[in-house]
Formats: sequence, structure tokens, C-alpha cells
Amino acid sequence: MAVDSGRLCGLGVGPGDPELLTLKALRLLRAVPVVAYPAPEHGDSFARSIVAAWIERHQREIAIRFPMRPGPSPVEIYDGAAAALAAELDAGRDVALLCQGDPLFYGSFINVFTRLASRYRVEIVPGVSSLTACAAAAAIPLVSRDDALAVIPATLDEDQIATRLAASDTAAIVKLGRHVVKVRRVLDRLGILNGAVYIEHATLPTQRVAPFACVTPDVAPYFSMVLVARSRKADGRS
Amino acid sequence: MAVDSGRLCGLGVGPGDPELLTLKALRLLRAVPVVAYPAPEHGDSFARSIVAAWIERHQREIAIRFPMRPGPSPVEIYDGAAAALAAELDAGRDVALLCQGDPLFYGSFINVFTRLASRYRVEIVPGVSSLTACAAAAAIPLVSRDDALAVIPATLDEDQIATRLAASDTAAIVKLGRHVVKVRRVLDRLGILNGAVYIEHATLPTQRVAPFACVTPDVAPYFSMVLVARSRKADGRS
Repeated sequence: MAVDSGRLCGLGVGPGDPELLTLKALRLLRAVPVVAYPAPEHGDSFARSIVAAWIERHQREIAIRFPMRPGPSPVEIYDGAAAALAAELDAGRDVALLCQGDPLFYGSFINVFTRLASRYRVEIVPGVSSLTACAAAAAIPLVSRDDALAVIPATLDEDQIATRLAASDTAAIVKLGRHVVKVRRVLDRLGILNGAVYIEHATLPTQRVAPFACVTPDVAPYFSMVLVARSRKADGRS
Repeated sequence: MAVDSGRLCGLGVGPGDPELLTLKALRLLRAVPVVAYPAPEHGDSFARSIVAAWIERHQREIAIRFPMRPGPSPVEIYDGAAAALAAELDAGRDVALLCQGDPLFYGSFINVFTRLASRYRVEIVPGVSSLTACAAAAAIPLVSRDDALAVIPATLDEDQIATRLAASDTAAIVKLGRHVVKVRRVLDRLGILNGAVYIEHATLPTQRVAPFACVTPDVAPYFSMVLVARSRKADGRS
């Protein structure tokens, strides 16, 4: 690890509301000469859009683009991104990699981190995750006292989802996308569909909160979540 | 809900580093005439200490104090706190209730929220939780791709902890306190003690990160956590 190489900063920029940026992420963002972020094949990066007001013209920008398939595999994309960032770090320039939500909570940052952490200094700035942002949007207490919480990807199969739901008081089902019908079937089978709340685009102007039972079973956005809270009424009893 | 009554703002102020405050929490904190926070019987409030630099003399402060037992029960304490805050809200004053970490993630805010939410406008500002702060401190990817995450209070009994560990890829064991020996025994029994990492006072100058197997089994601080990450190496493969 060369002392004069740059530092990789994984900056959590929060769930979407630009005001949910932390003071620390803002300070580091403004200090670095290079700003990197994930982006679709064409068009704007969501992570970049959150902090767009703070990026200045003199900062070099590196978009890590994810083309539609067929195209390079995710492994190839992250290998390429790591190489591009390494070139900046080797030249002694600090690089901020923007991460929507938190860098280590389903963040694409993880794929860059595992490739570069052994060779460069890394600073990780935690951010407000979609988990707590969705709870705040729906005004649903996530966990209190002895409650256990499960975060469950909707991409798992029905039995895996059911097992994880059974081992928790509150559950957040993430990565809903194309799995609305399946998740609804699991919750219905377990008799907990009626308490489930659907949250889409939390903290953005397009935010939507609705009973999950009332959501039409089309494709939900990737940034949507279902919260199933079964914790006892919090009144301070322990 | 009287339109001219004040608004209750649950402000997540993050895990401890004052720089992990969000721009939104800072704006609301500076705008309200009344600032409330949990505090021990004697001495300083941890939540207040995080934002102390921003509190101004003209702001009224309400400490929700938790005396050592025997004394008033938690129910009595929260009933009293809710009444004190309601008096301010009824007088038309906005009240910010400071919450270390996130308001809805094991926050004492929940106990005030359940008492006042039906009568007053409430705004909840999510904060950086101890969960992502500890992951960042230890540089441990929490979850990626199809990983499931469990948050498990160490206060549960051994079998409950074991069941919840089995239903997850990554686990965060919170509220460690007097339960170090028990938690270590469970992890040892499951053969996952060696991968477990202990984090204390994440993001504070007193932060400590150590292999959990090397932590002497005394009483850990309340603000400590064990992370057990078993997720596959994140390299972008899906």
C-alpha cells in the first residue's frame, strides 16, 4: 500500500432526499478530485442525482455504467471499474464512490471494495439506508426492546422467505421488483398480508406508501420495500 | 389534531460522530424552539452530546431522565415525557426529540411516538443507524445480492438466538451488555465464533474493533455489537 496513493472513500448518500446526506459525506465529497458512481447504460446516475448540487466542474467524474444484457458481465464491469479507480488512486488522487443508501447494505460499493481494499486506504462513510428511510416514510416502528428484525431479499424462493419471516418480529422484504405476486402469496399463506405496508421511492417527491394488499401486482420499482411489523405495542414495558 | 398545535420531530442524530448528522436533522434541530432527549438520572445525554455544538441558548431543553431502579417504571417515565412534550405541542411549539442512531431502530422515540402520534403531526427524520455504522467501522460488507440479514437482540435466550442466526447470511447481534458469555457460547456451538467481529462505540474516538473471540467476557457497553458475516465473496457474480 503506497503511502502516496489516493484514498478510496465509499460515501453513503442516503435514500434519495438530498437533505439526508450527512455532514461527513458532504465534506469528503467536496474535498476529492474524483467522483465515481454507478449509472445505467444511458442516462443519469441515481446516486449522483442525490448530490448533484454539490459536484463542481473541476471534479473528474467516472460513471460505472451497467449496460443491458447481453453485454459485459457484472464481473467484467466491476473489474473495469476497479481498474479505472485504481489508476486515479495510483496517481495520488482521492476518489469518492457515491453509494445510494449505505455503502455496505446491498451496495455496489461492495464489489469495488473487495477488489481494492487490500491495495489502498479505504474510508467508508455510513449513510441513511433504505431500511430506516422506509420505516420513517411509513411511520412504522421497526424494532424495539427484544424484537428481532429480518431483512429478506424478495429474490429468494417462497420457502426461504417464509423461514426467515418466521424467525423475526419485524421483516423488511427488499428488492421487490418482479416478485410482488410471489411475496404476496407467501404473506397471505402465513396470514400476515394485512399488516404489510408497501413503500416506494421513500423520501423522494414520488414517495408512495400503501397497504401491500392494495398494490396491483405489476412490476414494482427496484427501490421498493414491504415492511411487516408484528412487534408488540411499544409502551416502555420491558 | 389541532392545526395550530406544534409538530413533533423525531430526529435521528446518528451513531455518535457529530459529522454523521444529516443536513435535514440539522435544519430541523436549528429551527425548533424545544429540544428533548433521553438522559441518564444524572449527567449528560448521549443524543444531546452528538449535536451539542448546534443547540442554542434560546432553545428550551427537556431531558427525559431514566433514574436507576427502584424508581418510576419505564411506562411512568414515558407517560410523563409524553405529557411534557404534549404541553409544548399544545402551546403551538415544535419539539425535536433527539434519537441516537435512527428513531425507529430500537429508539426510545418509539415509546413517545406511540403515545402522541394520534394527536399531533409527526415528522420522522431517519438517521445513520448503529447497524451500518458498525459495518463501516469494521469494513465488513453487511449484505449483497441475495443475502438475508438478521438483527438479533442479545437479550433473547440461546435457542432463539441460534434459530435467528440459522435463518440469515449475515447477523448483527445488538444490545450485547451483560450477554457476552452467552452469545459467545451460541456462536461457538454453531461453529461461527471465529468469523465474528466485535464493535464498540462505533464512529466515536473510543471506537474499538476486535475479533469477538478475543474480547474478555466482562460486561460490554450497551452500544456494542457483534457482526457475523457469512456472505459469499462479493465479486459481482449473480
